[in-house]
Amino acid sequence: VIRCNERLEVIALPGVPLVRAGDDLTTLALPALDRARLTLSDGDIVVVTSKVVSRAAGRFVALPSVAPSPRAEELAALTGHDPRHVELILGESVAVSRAKRNVLVVRHRLGFVVANAGIDFSNAAPADAPPGSGPWALLLPEAPDATAELLRERLAAATSARIGVVISDSFGRPFRLGSVGVAIGCAGLPPLWDQRGALDLHGRTLEHTMTALADQVAACADLVAGQADEGRALVLVRGLQFSPSLDAARTLCRPADEDLYA
Amino acid sequence: VIRCNERLEVIALPGVPLVRAGDDLTTLALPALDRARLTLSDGDIVVVTSKVVSRAAGRFVALPSVAPSPRAEELAALTGHDPRHVELILGESVAVSRAKRNVLVVRHRLGFVVANAGIDFSNAAPADAPPGSGPWALLLPEAPDATAELLRERLAAATSARIGVVISDSFGRPFRLGSVGVAIGCAGLPPLWDQRGALDLHGRTLEHTMTALADQVAACADLVAGQADEGRALVLVRGLQFSPSLDAARTLCRPADEDLYA
Repeated sequence: VIRCNERLEVIALPGVPLVRAGDDLTTLALPALDRARLTLSDGDIVVVTSKVVSRAAGRFVALPSVAPSPRAEELAALTGHDPRHVELILGESVAVSRAKRNVLVVRHRLGFVVANAGIDFSNAAPADAPPGSGPWALLLPEAPDATAELLRERLAAATSARIGVVISDSFGRPFRLGSVGVAIGCAGLPPLWDQRGALDLHGRTLEHTMTALADQVAACADLVAGQADEGRALVLVRGLQFSPSLDAARTLCRPADEDLYA
Repeated sequence: VIRCNERLEVIALPGVPLVRAGDDLTTLALPALDRARLTLSDGDIVVVTSKVVSRAAGRFVALPSVAPSPRAEELAALTGHDPRHVELILGESVAVSRAKRNVLVVRHRLGFVVANAGIDFSNAAPADAPPGSGPWALLLPEAPDATAELLRERLAAATSARIGVVISDSFGRPFRLGSVGVAIGCAGLPPLWDQRGALDLHGRTLEHTMTALADQVAACADLVAGQADEGRALVLVRGLQFSPSLDAARTLCRPADEDLYA
């Protein structure tokens, strides 16, 4: 059961330092909440950008260390991408969805369809990268649903609050221009808000009955998180009411065999 | 130029009555703001669900009045939809994107790709529908960008605030389950937030540089607007800072000839 309050607050937590490999997300989040004079309470959702999770987990790859396969060279010639980029993209993917000049859309091993396997080629260097060691790439987190659950448990233990955690990224879309926030990791809140069975004002069953709750939470957070400013990598979304859920963000991915556009 | 504050508020305006054909959106919105003790100020965005706009514009169609064409009968047999539904869907569309059992995705005359041309078959009856006159369908607004601009002008004239207006709907998506709020009408704010040319922390040009601002505003609003509850059809999003824009929501639609998935 989810009910919406009439008011949501979406609050960027300021002053999070540039995250380094080995940093612990819990010990980043708790002081950030303190600085903002916020105490976690039931129904709060902590949104963390995937970039921060990847940096903390050290998901950096120095491109000079990457040896492209023949398949990567072939797709690089087609797309115009750096063959080493393509090699990393293929390593994170289970299938190519579309490839043409400047475009390489894949089905990621985590289940979603995304350009360039979500690999970041900006803001992607480790804090201690030696000069000349790059360029660097930053892969998406290894297991963002597990990371979200671990962070949720630790924040819950520290605060006794029933909270949710979303790990967010920003994806482009078929049909529509511009990127939007999506949830690639989720814990504690239902990623899909199932209203099936609810009736409309006239007693007819509602038609559009599954809301991508975690994706919309990520979209909210994206509006305040910015991108160039790593200091806004943590966002608190306050005001939703939800029953605890064990569902992961993976449940937001439409299975390939049910996808009319894959 | 858009800057995000560190805090957004997303506020449903309570007590909006069931909207009837002929109702004026401005005279719905201003008392709703008053009731919530809110005064519009610069940077506020008023989000109105497309359903309210359509109801006010009387976009109701009684299905018994619809005569399906042969093409509609054919697609009805394929999809299992009511042939009269399909006739309405085709009438609002410029192309069929995908059709199979239970699925009819089209390119809408307004430019976007959406299931069933966004036509609503729930909560779709006029307030004064005679018994037995239905079932009813509710078409999307005729020209939501123009309606958004008119509402923006009138609210700005009444309040002297530089505001934005978004007309929102809730769309399903390829690749991902669940629906999310999108902007089908937009005035006053840039629907796309163009960060091209911005540099990352290491001086490299940012890669994902176009954010679908108006879609994310619609997604925020969807979290508090609910669906079964018409009383939450108006939402105020407060805390973004944006330069006035003349761009319409139509600019969010990827042109068909650039769409790899159409």
